[in-house]
Amino acid sequence: MRLPERVTVYEVGPRDGLQNEKAIVPVEVKAEFIERLEDAGHRVIEATSFVHPAWVPQLADAEQLLAAISRKPGIRYPVLVPNDRGLDRALANGVDEIAIFASATETFANKNLNRTLDSQFEMFEPVVARALEHDVKVRAYVSMVFGDPWEGRTPAEQVVRVGTRLLDLGCHELSLGDTIGVGTPGQAADLIGAFPDPARLAVHFHDTYGQALANTLAALQAGVTVIDASTGGIGGCPYAESATGNLATEDLVWMLHGLGIETGLDLDKLVATSVWLAERLGRPSPSRVVQALADKDTPDAER
Amino acid sequence: MRLPERVTVYEVGPRDGLQNEKAIVPVEVKAEFIERLEDAGHRVIEATSFVHPAWVPQLADAEQLLAAISRKPGIRYPVLVPNDRGLDRALANGVDEIAIFASATETFANKNLNRTLDSQFEMFEPVVARALEHDVKVRAYVSMVFGDPWEGRTPAEQVVRVGTRLLDLGCHELSLGDTIGVGTPGQAADLIGAFPDPARLAVHFHDTYGQALANTLAALQAGVTVIDASTGGIGGCPYAESATGNLATEDLVWMLHGLGIETGLDLDKLVATSVWLAERLGRPSPSRVVQALADKDTPDAER
Repeated sequence: MRLPERVTVYEVGPRDGLQNEKAIVPVEVKAEFIERLEDAGHRVIEATSFVHPAWVPQLADAEQLLAAISRKPGIRYPVLVPNDRGLDRALANGVDEIAIFASATETFANKNLNRTLDSQFEMFEPVVARALEHDVKVRAYVSMVFGDPWEGRTPAEQVVRVGTRLLDLGCHELSLGDTIGVGTPGQAADLIGAFPDPARLAVHFHDTYGQALANTLAALQAGVTVIDASTGGIGGCPYAESATGNLATEDLVWMLHGLGIETGLDLDKLVATSVWLAERLGRPSPSRVVQALADKDTPDAER
Repeated sequence: MRLPERVTVYEVGPRDGLQNEKAIVPVEVKAEFIERLEDAGHRVIEATSFVHPAWVPQLADAEQLLAAISRKPGIRYPVLVPNDRGLDRALANGVDEIAIFASATETFANKNLNRTLDSQFEMFEPVVARALEHDVKVRAYVSMVFGDPWEGRTPAEQVVRVGTRLLDLGCHELSLGDTIGVGTPGQAADLIGAFPDPARLAVHFHDTYGQALANTLAALQAGVTVIDASTGGIGGCPYAESATGNLATEDLVWMLHGLGIETGLDLDKLVATSVWLAERLGRPSPSRVVQALADKDTPDAER
């Protein structure tokens, strides 16, 4: 099995994981969350978002959070930036890496960004150009890469076209997002193979249909070495009892370490962080690994 | 990606899925469960077990269940048989395929079978010989193939030694079971590759650490075409709120169909069966696919 020796886990919990939580998480808890992730070995932590507070009230405290954490050398703290105004806020707060969020489908571009598939670039171009002028790195998400709820399956050529334009703008990394979690490993392999260089790709899989880890294995085999994941699997659907959406960092790390792939992460500390966070969110973690390891009273043989 | 064109899903729900349920499921419900599985396209359904009723009270109605269902031509209904006495019962009830359950580790052989790794064969040999004399096919499970809770990692050579002895006895199929769900895809590929012929192997993965589907992908790539799974993911740990253990048939089928692999199964009917069963068990299915598809009120984009 051809696999990388080392993988970077791109942790999205503080932003993507928390953004749909209805009850506002205090900024002190968010800051402690990020400190715990640093302590567990994370070197890339998407910290928050500069979207308009009316859209995502949970992350309205982005400035306060960035002031509350001490950003450490060697650790990246990218922040989601939707537009020019978001970039102003990022620059004013000394952010040195941002992430922008594009759509691979016409309908989602319209619903999420109020743009067409093509006109979304009019929004991104000045943001990326100005970020690069300020030596701010830009990661680009492409969402709905395998399908969306309205158009069905997304053609790989369309994802490649959108993704290539984003890379050509100067984005250093493209994160391919299966936002509704419908994709399977063959689609993952095919899509990655349709890009000229897997070294500039990351994958962002959702576990809605249980496929995230199998898709990740296919992505690793196709040469991808940056995997997005969320502490304890938080995020995704805010309505389900134990919301499942993002691939859980712990489930990913269990597989990576089992495959002998280095991550620099301490699984026990990750699980402890998820247990701690679950108490604060008042809901058990949907991660299988967290459920298995947090419940030490259950003998292994019964699991 | 090298993959088979067709896969046989070996459905273990009625036996492995139900065996740990504390509240006794009425025999009529079990019979309807099996009929629903047939209607969804299953052609191999492990129906029940002839273990001593004191060990597994839930399956004490094995004779009544076999009398209650009409066994259809072209569908296999293997029954678990632990020993000579179990085989007597199987033969008396016209069973034409049995499954035996071996251990790959010394400690589990001792705890589960009260035998040593070697002496378990003294129990299996006469059972298999007598079954074959009666034209009854025998499937063999090997459990704890990647590790057990007492000895840590199971050496692949040890699994191959146990498995080869079982095949040499005349078992037609060997199901490699990761009973505690600790394995990762590299181990799956290595273990399968250590056997001379993947055509005689099946895999039985547990989702305790979220690895079952990724391990299945590795098994498919290694040439295995028989995959064990349980309706809705029932079975495994009987203590957790939404018990997770066996790979959910629906999550498996979502992946297989996405990969373009034929199964003969109707996913909608499988999901409907899991929803129906969950109501009877009084507990939601742990399958991600069942959770996603059963909850039609949630817009896809929010999942």
